[in-house]
Amino acid sequence: MIYSAEQLKTFVKNAFLAAGASEEHALLASEALLAADLRGVDSHGVARLSGYIRLWQQQRLNMQPNIQLEHETPSTAVVNGDLGAGLIVAQRAMDIAIEKANNVGTGWVAVKNSNHFGIAGYHAMKALKHDMIGISMTNASALVAPTFSKDRMLGTNPIAVAIPAGKEPPFVMDMATTPAANGKLEVNERLNKDIPKGWAQTKEGHSTTDNCALKNGGAMLPLGSDREHGSHKGYCLGAWVDIFSAVLSGANYGPWVPPFVSFLSPPPNPVGEGIGHFVGAMRIDAFRPADEFKAHMDNWIQAFRKAKSVEGQPVVQIPGDQERLIEEERMRQGICIHSSVEEDMAEIAQLLNINRP
Amino acid sequence: MIYSAEQLKTFVKNAFLAAGASEEHALLASEALLAADLRGVDSHGVARLSGYIRLWQQQRLNMQPNIQLEHETPSTAVVNGDLGAGLIVAQRAMDIAIEKANNVGTGWVAVKNSNHFGIAGYHAMKALKHDMIGISMTNASALVAPTFSKDRMLGTNPIAVAIPAGKEPPFVMDMATTPAANGKLEVNERLNKDIPKGWAQTKEGHSTTDNCALKNGGAMLPLGSDREHGSHKGYCLGAWVDIFSAVLSGANYGPWVPPFVSFLSPPPNPVGEGIGHFVGAMRIDAFRPADEFKAHMDNWIQAFRKAKSVEGQPVVQIPGDQERLIEEERMRQGICIHSSVEEDMAEIAQLLNINRP
Repeated sequence: MIYSAEQLKTFVKNAFLAAGASEEHALLASEALLAADLRGVDSHGVARLSGYIRLWQQQRLNMQPNIQLEHETPSTAVVNGDLGAGLIVAQRAMDIAIEKANNVGTGWVAVKNSNHFGIAGYHAMKALKHDMIGISMTNASALVAPTFSKDRMLGTNPIAVAIPAGKEPPFVMDMATTPAANGKLEVNERLNKDIPKGWAQTKEGHSTTDNCALKNGGAMLPLGSDREHGSHKGYCLGAWVDIFSAVLSGANYGPWVPPFVSFLSPPPNPVGEGIGHFVGAMRIDAFRPADEFKAHMDNWIQAFRKAKSVEGQPVVQIPGDQERLIEEERMRQGICIHSSVEEDMAEIAQLLNINRP
Repeated sequence: MIYSAEQLKTFVKNAFLAAGASEEHALLASEALLAADLRGVDSHGVARLSGYIRLWQQQRLNMQPNIQLEHETPSTAVVNGDLGAGLIVAQRAMDIAIEKANNVGTGWVAVKNSNHFGIAGYHAMKALKHDMIGISMTNASALVAPTFSKDRMLGTNPIAVAIPAGKEPPFVMDMATTPAANGKLEVNERLNKDIPKGWAQTKEGHSTTDNCALKNGGAMLPLGSDREHGSHKGYCLGAWVDIFSAVLSGANYGPWVPPFVSFLSPPPNPVGEGIGHFVGAMRIDAFRPADEFKAHMDNWIQAFRKAKSVEGQPVVQIPGDQERLIEEERMRQGICIHSSVEEDMAEIAQLLNINRP
């Protein structure tokens, strides 16, 4: 069924409130979650609400976190999320990064003791209205095998970078460090469709088109897919995100990252607290006058839009174009929610004694 | 023939001196160039010396640059390289980043009016001995087509990140944002061998195994190779590097980046000055005590080394392992220089009236 963004946001907010979150936190969480649905990343939006609620029921997520700044310098900080929802914790971290950028040009915050923060792009984009560049990354539970390995060692560890422009809309990249996000495997499974070679491997580490490869003990592959096509580079990117998010902050890294889903237990012998994020903000005018920068960004964007397409292929896109077009459409026409997610929502409504949208 | 690193370094230094560089600059250039040969990136080492000399002959490279800090905040700066060799300019920028990190936790320097800076990893690694994480990136002349396009719009734009460990050697990633570096196409051409699908496309934008694809007007592909395997993510990475290196600093970006080779003219109507770099340094203890961080890095590295290999595949490597092993070997056994590079060296020796090694 189709719902308005406002209806869904109210539902998410009411769910967090009913679970004990403050008005402020419930609002932050609902905005971050809805940003995913609006931007077309359905797997990271309202569909994830039940995940947060189930973790909370297991006391693996704290609805009243005391988010603390544990250490800082003029341009850096470490934040302890107190097991709060990453949706909220990462926004607090980004606020701190922006404040530091205001003071000394840039701000960089490593976060521990958090969990799933939604879409990386949402957090990076918070910097835009301050005429800053925003960066965000997070680690996640291990699904990806490093080049040559059959073991799952890294999450799909996304990187987002949001860069303001002038007349043009901002440049917003938000990418998993794998060829395809995990959600795409699930879509193929639902449709009973093979996945392309290069997305996943079997338990033994062989190339596969099995859409259940992960469920059968296999692993996702890093961006690049195989050594010949640069999978070692995708592995580097995922490792970089893992180290910045968790080794810098004191969170769990690599195979120790706790899963988001409540039916899997966290790995034994944790090496840190919760999962980790890393966010940053850079003031444009810490480098050159913002107007000058934005005029050149407009020129950059226009030049790339004008690049000639291969015959039969779509026009060249600027990172963020696709998500923005979907957002405009969904703001007008509403958001279609899959029946399985509607069932989850009904369960949550009953559990927390709140109205369904 | 085989030469010692010292012999080659002296030759490079003497060449820069004879071309008018200061003792300090000649030393910096020779160290950066030899780092490439030692680490096995032969395409970026002594083989490139003639490129710098030829650009200097055309007055497109300044051997006596007045490298200036044009703008700064406590954590940022913009450096004007005054058309000096990137090998030297990027090191000065990294020194500034390190100094700022000492003062306020992190330092970030965007560089304009520079040219080829050698291997990205060398500059990032300069931070390691200060117990800092080092980052470096650079743009380069356009060889890569964005997803869906047939036009060359981006360079192979590398990203390097160097992270200190404790007992283990540091984590050093240094990657072009394409499946294979341009040098690999040239190697295949020399051997008259097809290139794998997914490295390059024809002038019309079609998939090809032609090792002369670039020479025939084609383009390299971004990491991910095609849309289905995430080439739009490789395109995002290359674009990110381009914007940080050049739009932030005021250098040329995208299709306007001047070529390193002297037989190609710079594109008309420049949008900035020279090429651009972006370097950064982050003090470990701006986040957590350095000893604690390093102990966890050791644990991270050991866990990844222990990841099980796929049958018949090599052991899992840590980024930087391969280059370090080559460096150890070449320090012992010397560096084998290809006869065509020896011919270049002989020409340079004659031109500048210096001794050949």
